[in-house]
Amino acid sequence: MTYCVAVKLQGSLIFVSDSRTNAGVDQVNTYSKLYTWGIDGERQVALLSAGNLATTQAVAQRLRREMDDPASETSLLSLQRMDEVADYVGRVSREEQSRHADGGQVAGFNPEATFILGGQIKGQPSELYLIYPQGNHIRPSDSSPFLQIGEVKYGKPILDRIIRPDTPLEDAVRCALVSMDSTMRSNATVGPPIELLIYADDTLRLQSYLRLGQDDPYLAELRLSWNQNLLNAFRALPMVDMDRLEPPPQRS
Amino acid sequence: MTYCVAVKLQGSLIFVSDSRTNAGVDQVNTYSKLYTWGIDGERQVALLSAGNLATTQAVAQRLRREMDDPASETSLLSLQRMDEVADYVGRVSREEQSRHADGGQVAGFNPEATFILGGQIKGQPSELYLIYPQGNHIRPSDSSPFLQIGEVKYGKPILDRIIRPDTPLEDAVRCALVSMDSTMRSNATVGPPIELLIYADDTLRLQSYLRLGQDDPYLAELRLSWNQNLLNAFRALPMVDMDRLEPPPQRS
Repeated sequence: MTYCVAVKLQGSLIFVSDSRTNAGVDQVNTYSKLYTWGIDGERQVALLSAGNLATTQAVAQRLRREMDDPASETSLLSLQRMDEVADYVGRVSREEQSRHADGGQVAGFNPEATFILGGQIKGQPSELYLIYPQGNHIRPSDSSPFLQIGEVKYGKPILDRIIRPDTPLEDAVRCALVSMDSTMRSNATVGPPIELLIYADDTLRLQSYLRLGQDDPYLAELRLSWNQNLLNAFRALPMVDMDRLEPPPQRS
Repeated sequence: MTYCVAVKLQGSLIFVSDSRTNAGVDQVNTYSKLYTWGIDGERQVALLSAGNLATTQAVAQRLRREMDDPASETSLLSLQRMDEVADYVGRVSREEQSRHADGGQVAGFNPEATFILGGQIKGQPSELYLIYPQGNHIRPSDSSPFLQIGEVKYGKPILDRIIRPDTPLEDAVRCALVSMDSTMRSNATVGPPIELLIYADDTLRLQSYLRLGQDDPYLAELRLSWNQNLLNAFRALPMVDMDRLEPPPQRS
């Protein structure tokens, strides 16, 4: 399984991904799900991936190949707008999925992949897209500007509560990491290392990346503080007025 | 959709359920998903239900009918142990589902229902069971003693973090309500009124019930405090050391 989340704040993009893949419980591996490409000062693109690992690797390799091939008419470096880049990634994803679609004869085989694409092209605003297996895509909502792929439900409530366009960067980073930590606790097939990438709008450079391993002291400290702070947060909540409690109504 | 959660603490059982049902987005209704039966001083049984509303209503009605029928050999009042009660509810559920199984010819029709059963029979410990559509059942784990049915994922991380057998009752009640509130925020088909039932072991009486409507001042206060406390909890978390951030590795 996979969990990736990206946030679009006023002034920056945040990308967070886990690194665990599994094809059955006895085939667990570690793979990065974060890909980056760009030309400093011109454009930067980051891609988070979920779904069939063969598909996501094939997509990433083909994006790289077409970027490096001077004869290629379309590539991450030639397209003029981010929505065109999203269309392009969606098309490549569909083509790679369809090459193995007849593998569907094996029960449970699914070549589908889902992506989050983010970045900026010089002279245009930074953008974030979720690209579905069908190749179409959406942008985050204005009020809750985050996107998730993979095992999304466990980590969603905390994002729903905290993330707004004007959330300070530090809060949003910690929120995304806590969202990841909650997901790892509740689903054993989501696991470290955790990768974090922050893109500051208009820098057109990727300078802020961090890989947090299983035993990373910061991750351990974050987890411990969050547990303690949550417990304190509970203790400070208003109590149910026990005088309001009464026998339940009789229903047939 | 539905969300119900039950907790087995040292000394008490907690049951929390929402009340929204929907068969399509234009058929939204309010139904209680909590049923209680018992004889004061002898035994008490509570049931939370999720799944097909026709099935859960048919099950609840049949349990009541067989309880009231002196000719009935098996009923909630005659069985000697809680695991026998769980078997019985599972059998009734399967029989009611199978009556409508051929409705499966309509695309999307699913008669399945899932239940949480809890209570106590005099002279025995209190018990909690999750009863699957297949009629089999499980008890909560010793270390994380809660059970959930319906839309379970959004509200699970907070339970994973807080609920232990020795969690104080007030903390566990607030945690279950926050788990419900998080689920309502993230899934529009889970909604109030929220029902809360607390059973104190060995009382063999149901005396502590509360129904929290949409505009309940306590629910509003809880929600507001939780939002504020969470934000404070975030602000108190250790920050990522920005000096550790560096350009991302180049991967093909």
